[in-house]
Amino acid sequence: MTRVRLDLGYDGTDFSGWAVQPGRRTVAGELGLALDRLFGAGGATGLTVAGRTDAGVHATGQVCHVDVPDDPYGDSLVRRLAGLLPPDVRVYRATVVPDVFDARFSALSRRYEYRVTDAPFGAEPLARRTTLAWPRPVDLDVLNAAAVGLTGQHDFAAYCRRKEHATTIRAISRLDWRRLPDGVLVATVEADAFCQAMVRSLVGALLMAGDGRRPVDWPASLLSRTDRSNEVVVVGPHGLTLVAVAYPEGVDALAERAEVTRNLRA
Amino acid sequence: MTRVRLDLGYDGTDFSGWAVQPGRRTVAGELGLALDRLFGAGGATGLTVAGRTDAGVHATGQVCHVDVPDDPYGDSLVRRLAGLLPPDVRVYRATVVPDVFDARFSALSRRYEYRVTDAPFGAEPLARRTTLAWPRPVDLDVLNAAAVGLTGQHDFAAYCRRKEHATTIRAISRLDWRRLPDGVLVATVEADAFCQAMVRSLVGALLMAGDGRRPVDWPASLLSRTDRSNEVVVVGPHGLTLVAVAYPEGVDALAERAEVTRNLRA
Repeated sequence: MTRVRLDLGYDGTDFSGWAVQPGRRTVAGELGLALDRLFGAGGATGLTVAGRTDAGVHATGQVCHVDVPDDPYGDSLVRRLAGLLPPDVRVYRATVVPDVFDARFSALSRRYEYRVTDAPFGAEPLARRTTLAWPRPVDLDVLNAAAVGLTGQHDFAAYCRRKEHATTIRAISRLDWRRLPDGVLVATVEADAFCQAMVRSLVGALLMAGDGRRPVDWPASLLSRTDRSNEVVVVGPHGLTLVAVAYPEGVDALAERAEVTRNLRA
Repeated sequence: MTRVRLDLGYDGTDFSGWAVQPGRRTVAGELGLALDRLFGAGGATGLTVAGRTDAGVHATGQVCHVDVPDDPYGDSLVRRLAGLLPPDVRVYRATVVPDVFDARFSALSRRYEYRVTDAPFGAEPLARRTTLAWPRPVDLDVLNAAAVGLTGQHDFAAYCRRKEHATTIRAISRLDWRRLPDGVLVATVEADAFCQAMVRSLVGALLMAGDGRRPVDWPASLLSRTDRSNEVVVVGPHGLTLVAVAYPEGVDALAERAEVTRNLRA
């Protein structure tokens, strides 16, 4: 068997998220069907993804790995997958990687972007599938001031859907906002990992400060909680896109990182 | 009555073009319904557009005008239209203009963009509604070399759907291609006006040269024809977006331009 890294993107609008669910259309489900066509049912095994995106969330920089029978398609794998996959999911690159590469556990960080518009007319039609329309004017400086207190390592219990026996401690290495020339606000959030709905909860809290309904220090003040806060709005999934996953260089570093992360999550 | 200029955009995917057609969903149809709700049936009259886009063609810089009862909504017109229009059409700005402003006849030029990808995996999922997937590699330098001979004033009969008693002489002031960092090719085409399917025919001919199946001087050589060429591929409407319409400054210039254009088209 050969381990292959797949770099892919999808329009999350018509997917019930990444993970296979019976009776639902999911990205892993569609990818699995295409791989079964190429390698025979069960020929490709161990499909593992860096970021298990929720229903409606998009990706331009998703990464997964899969083990396939020794390299039977070579350089034509991307073209073959393009012919088999539906147009709302595309594999950009397929790369043979060492067996120690683990798309999930070797990852150093995930980067997401969240797009919001506060224009009086709402979201631009051609961008409406990837942009949340916020009904009040938002102050960019307040957004960025409120974001400062959320960076670093914290217990994000207030911003996480609770899972039994799972830590809610995460390290946010980047959280900032910019306004594009067309007026759209873009949040960039990078962390070692995220718990479920965490980015959408952080964005919701920041927007409540950014539009003046909460004090600028309110989002960071919630970090003292040990449970999910029901005052935080979880904004819609369609504004959210997974844009990049970072990995260390070299076989040793990949293996080491995978071991550290497996222990941390267990 | 007050003349109002509306700047608007739409996702053409689910529209049968701009113009009202019985039993079809069109942009003018949806806009007319919203104006009827605001001003009463027949209260807003003379809806006139700069560029009558075909089915499936998008706009981010469309302009139209309409005459409404004296300014009853003032600055709130954009918000009111946003509440009444479907999400695939948005009015960005509403501006009171002098009566001599004519969205169609006062226009100096229209600018379109056409997006094409020649990536082996096809169109990026989130861009697939606005980007044509071309199955062969395309050479940017050849595209631009072939485009040079098409600029200026010519009889574009080879590139026009024939209409009785209508001239096919047009003046292209700009036609060039660029490749974006993500690999997508964008053609920018600007002219005083376009006949039906002209941009899509020009792009189709240029792509046939750009992928090496026709000589670089072939697109310009067709200008010697007096009839539509059936060798020219009319590429799909979804790659095409009307991005800008230019008008002269000042009341006198607007009126003068409208008179010149009306005589030219008649």
